[in-house]
Amino acid sequence: MNIQTQSKSAVDPIKLEKLAEVAVKVGLQLQHGQDLIITAPIAALPLVRLITKHAYMAGAGLVTTFYADEVTTLARYAHAPDDSFDKASGWLYEGMARAFAGGAARLAIAGDNPMLLADQDPAKVARANKANSMAYKPALEKISNFDINWNIVSYPNPSWAKVVFPELPEEEAVFKLAEAIFAASRVDLADPVAAWAAHNTTLRSRSDWLNGERFEALHFTGPGTDLRVGLADGHEWHGGASTAKNGITCNPNIPTEEVFTTPHALKVEGHVSSTKPLSHQGTLIDEIQVRFEAGRIVEAKASKGEAVLNKVLDTDDGARRLGEVALVPHSSPISKSGVLFYNTLFDENASCHIALGQCYSKCFLDGASLSQEQITAQGGNSSLIHIDWMIGSDKVDIDGIKPDGSKVPVMRKGEWA
Amino acid sequence: MNIQTQSKSAVDPIKLEKLAEVAVKVGLQLQHGQDLIITAPIAALPLVRLITKHAYMAGAGLVTTFYADEVTTLARYAHAPDDSFDKASGWLYEGMARAFAGGAARLAIAGDNPMLLADQDPAKVARANKANSMAYKPALEKISNFDINWNIVSYPNPSWAKVVFPELPEEEAVFKLAEAIFAASRVDLADPVAAWAAHNTTLRSRSDWLNGERFEALHFTGPGTDLRVGLADGHEWHGGASTAKNGITCNPNIPTEEVFTTPHALKVEGHVSSTKPLSHQGTLIDEIQVRFEAGRIVEAKASKGEAVLNKVLDTDDGARRLGEVALVPHSSPISKSGVLFYNTLFDENASCHIALGQCYSKCFLDGASLSQEQITAQGGNSSLIHIDWMIGSDKVDIDGIKPDGSKVPVMRKGEWA
Repeated sequence: MNIQTQSKSAVDPIKLEKLAEVAVKVGLQLQHGQDLIITAPIAALPLVRLITKHAYMAGAGLVTTFYADEVTTLARYAHAPDDSFDKASGWLYEGMARAFAGGAARLAIAGDNPMLLADQDPAKVARANKANSMAYKPALEKISNFDINWNIVSYPNPSWAKVVFPELPEEEAVFKLAEAIFAASRVDLADPVAAWAAHNTTLRSRSDWLNGERFEALHFTGPGTDLRVGLADGHEWHGGASTAKNGITCNPNIPTEEVFTTPHALKVEGHVSSTKPLSHQGTLIDEIQVRFEAGRIVEAKASKGEAVLNKVLDTDDGARRLGEVALVPHSSPISKSGVLFYNTLFDENASCHIALGQCYSKCFLDGASLSQEQITAQGGNSSLIHIDWMIGSDKVDIDGIKPDGSKVPVMRKGEWA
Repeated sequence: MNIQTQSKSAVDPIKLEKLAEVAVKVGLQLQHGQDLIITAPIAALPLVRLITKHAYMAGAGLVTTFYADEVTTLARYAHAPDDSFDKASGWLYEGMARAFAGGAARLAIAGDNPMLLADQDPAKVARANKANSMAYKPALEKISNFDINWNIVSYPNPSWAKVVFPELPEEEAVFKLAEAIFAASRVDLADPVAAWAAHNTTLRSRSDWLNGERFEALHFTGPGTDLRVGLADGHEWHGGASTAKNGITCNPNIPTEEVFTTPHALKVEGHVSSTKPLSHQGTLIDEIQVRFEAGRIVEAKASKGEAVLNKVLDTDDGARRLGEVALVPHSSPISKSGVLFYNTLFDENASCHIALGQCYSKCFLDGASLSQEQITAQGGNSSLIHIDWMIGSDKVDIDGIKPDGSKVPVMRKGEWA
C-alpha cells in the first residue's frame, strides 16, 4: 500500500486498536453475520482498517466503507457549476437505507476539519447541506429511530487537530487530540469494555431518577439564559447504552456523558445563550442567543456564523424547534479536559445542551410502538436536521418543574443537585 | 490532509493531470450538469482528486467516489466467517444502477495489485467473485449495454508496479509503470486530446473495412491454436470512440488499440492457447488451453490458476462461451513497450483476444433497438462475467471466412494483412 498518515507516529497504535475493539464490541455490539456500513474521512483509513479487522473477527458478514475527502469537497466549491449545490447522492443514501432495513449496522467515524467550509459562500453551504439532509433522510430515520444498532467514534485527523491546537506543530497537535479522544473514549484504561459497562450503569441511575420524577418542564437560569423547556408528554430519559428495535444493545455515541429526552415542540419559552461554539458542517457558530415563543425560535443572533445559523433555522419549520434536551455535569471528564473540540460529539458531553430539529422516538415511553402522528401529538418535533448546541456551564442552574408547579433542584452551578 | 503517496515523486504530476483531463474530456466527454460516479483503489487518491477537479471544471453536477482498499479486502479473507464469501454490497450496486438510469456517467480507475488474492483459498475467491458479479449485474448491464458514457483509466499503484517490475526498487517500479501508463494513454504527447481524435479515426477505418467484408467467421491458426470463431448474425465491428445510448460519444477504454465484435455463442470450434497470462481478480492464470465444441468450452487447462479458471467457467452457462473477439496488431504501442502489465486493460491492447461471457449489444447492427431475445437469437452470449484473454502473437495468422467459404487474409504474423 502506498498510503500512510504523516502523523502515524503521533497516534498510539495500541490505543487506536482498543478504540476499534470498543467501537465493535461496545459501540455496535456487532452480531455474527451482520453487515456493517462505515462512513469515514479518508484520513481515518488507519482506524477503518482496524475496525474492519475487528468487525470480521466478531463475525461480520460484509463490511463496506464509504469515504469522504476534504480535498474533493473543496474542489466542488472551487469549480462546480452553481446548480451542483442543490444536488446530493440520493442513490447512495437510499441504498444505505435498504441495507439498514436488511439488517446492516452503521458506524460513522467523525473527525472532519470543523472549519473546512468557513471561507465558502454560506448560501452554497446551506443549499448543499439542505440537499444532503433531504437525500439522507431515509437512512437517517433508521438511525435516529434506532431501527438498527449504530455508533460514532472519532479519529484525530490532522486538519481537525490543527483547529483544536492551532499553536502546536501538527504532529504534537495530532498527538494531543488523539490522547484526548482516547481518554474520553475510555480506551486509555486497562479494560475499556468493563469500564464502559460501569459507566453505562451510572448513566442509567441518572435517567432512572429523572424518569421517576416525571417533570413537566426544566427551567434553565444563568448568564443570558432564562429558559423554560417543556418536556414532551410521555417523555422518557435515556443515557449510555440503548437497545435498538433490532434487539441489539449498542452505545451509539463514544464518548457519551449525557442523559437526554424529548422536549415539547410547542412548549419552550424564554431566551438562552450558548456556552460553547457550535461547529456546523464546516462553519463555526459562536455566542448564539435565541428567543423562543411557544416552542419556536423567533429571534436568533450569533457573534460568528449568524448567516449560516439563520439558513439552518430556515431549513424547515421543525428546524426552529427543539428535538432534544440533555443534562451533563460540568465536572464531566471532557469538560475537565479543558479542550474545546469544535466537534459536537465531544463538546456536547462537556455541557448541558439542547438540539434543534428531529426528536428521537425512543425518548418516549413505549416509543417503538408510537406512530409519527402520536409522536407529534405528544410534542415530538420533526425536521431534516438535528443539531446540538451547548447551554450549560458552572454558572447555570436547572430546576425540574412538577405538574403542580413545585420545583425540584436538578443542577446547581452545573452539578447534579 | 494527512495522506500522501510514498511514491509521490515517482509519478509525473503534469502527465497525471493530463490523464485526468483526457479521462474527463476524451474518455467520458462529461456533459454540463451530468453526475459522475468514480470507483477507485484508495491508493489512486491523487488521480481521483485531479479527475474530480476536471469534472467540476467541465460542469459536473456531483462527483461521488467509492474507494476499495486492498488491506480491508485481505482482512476479510483473514478474519471473516465462511458465510461472508457469499455476500456482496447489492444495495450499493443497485444504487449505482439507479444513478446511471438517472443520467450519471461512470469512471473506473484500474490499478489493483493483480496478485492480491493469489495466496487465498480459490473456492472463497470464486464465491466472493460470483456473489459480487451477481450483485453488480444491474449496474454492469447499463455499462456493457452502453446506456451511459463510461471510461476506465489506470493509476500506477505501488502494489501493481511491484508485480510488473519485481526486480526494481518500489519508487523506480512506480516511475516505470507510470510512464508506461502515460505513453499508452497518449498523455506524454503535447496535445493528448488531438492525438486521441487522430487515433479514433484510424480505429474507425479498420472497423469500417471489417464491417464491409461481412465475414461469417474468423479462423485463428498458430502454435497450440486452430480456432474457428463464428461471428454473430448481424454483428458490427467497433473500435475507439463509441456513442452511448444517451447520445454522448465516449472512449470507454484508455488505452485502447482494438477493434472488436460479437462472436456467435453457438458457433466456435477448435482449440486455442493463451499467449499472455490472464490476471483475474487477484489470481494469475497462465498458459490457458481450451477446446470448444458448438461454442462451448468442453475442456480447460492452465499451467497456473487452473482451479480458479474452472471456477470461473462454472459461474453460469454463458461463462463457457464467447462474448467478444478483438483484433490488435502485434506492433501496437503497448505490445512494443514489451511490458507485461498483468492487467487486461493494457495487455488486451497488446494482442488479439477473446472474452468469455457477456457480449456487448452495441456490437450488432442497430444493436440499441434489439431485445435480449433477439440478441440471443442472433448468437449474442449472456453471462455474469466478461473476461478477456490474449490469443494473438507474431506467430498467429487470421483469415476471414465469407459465407461462400472463401478466405480473406486478415492478419499475418500478428499484423494487418
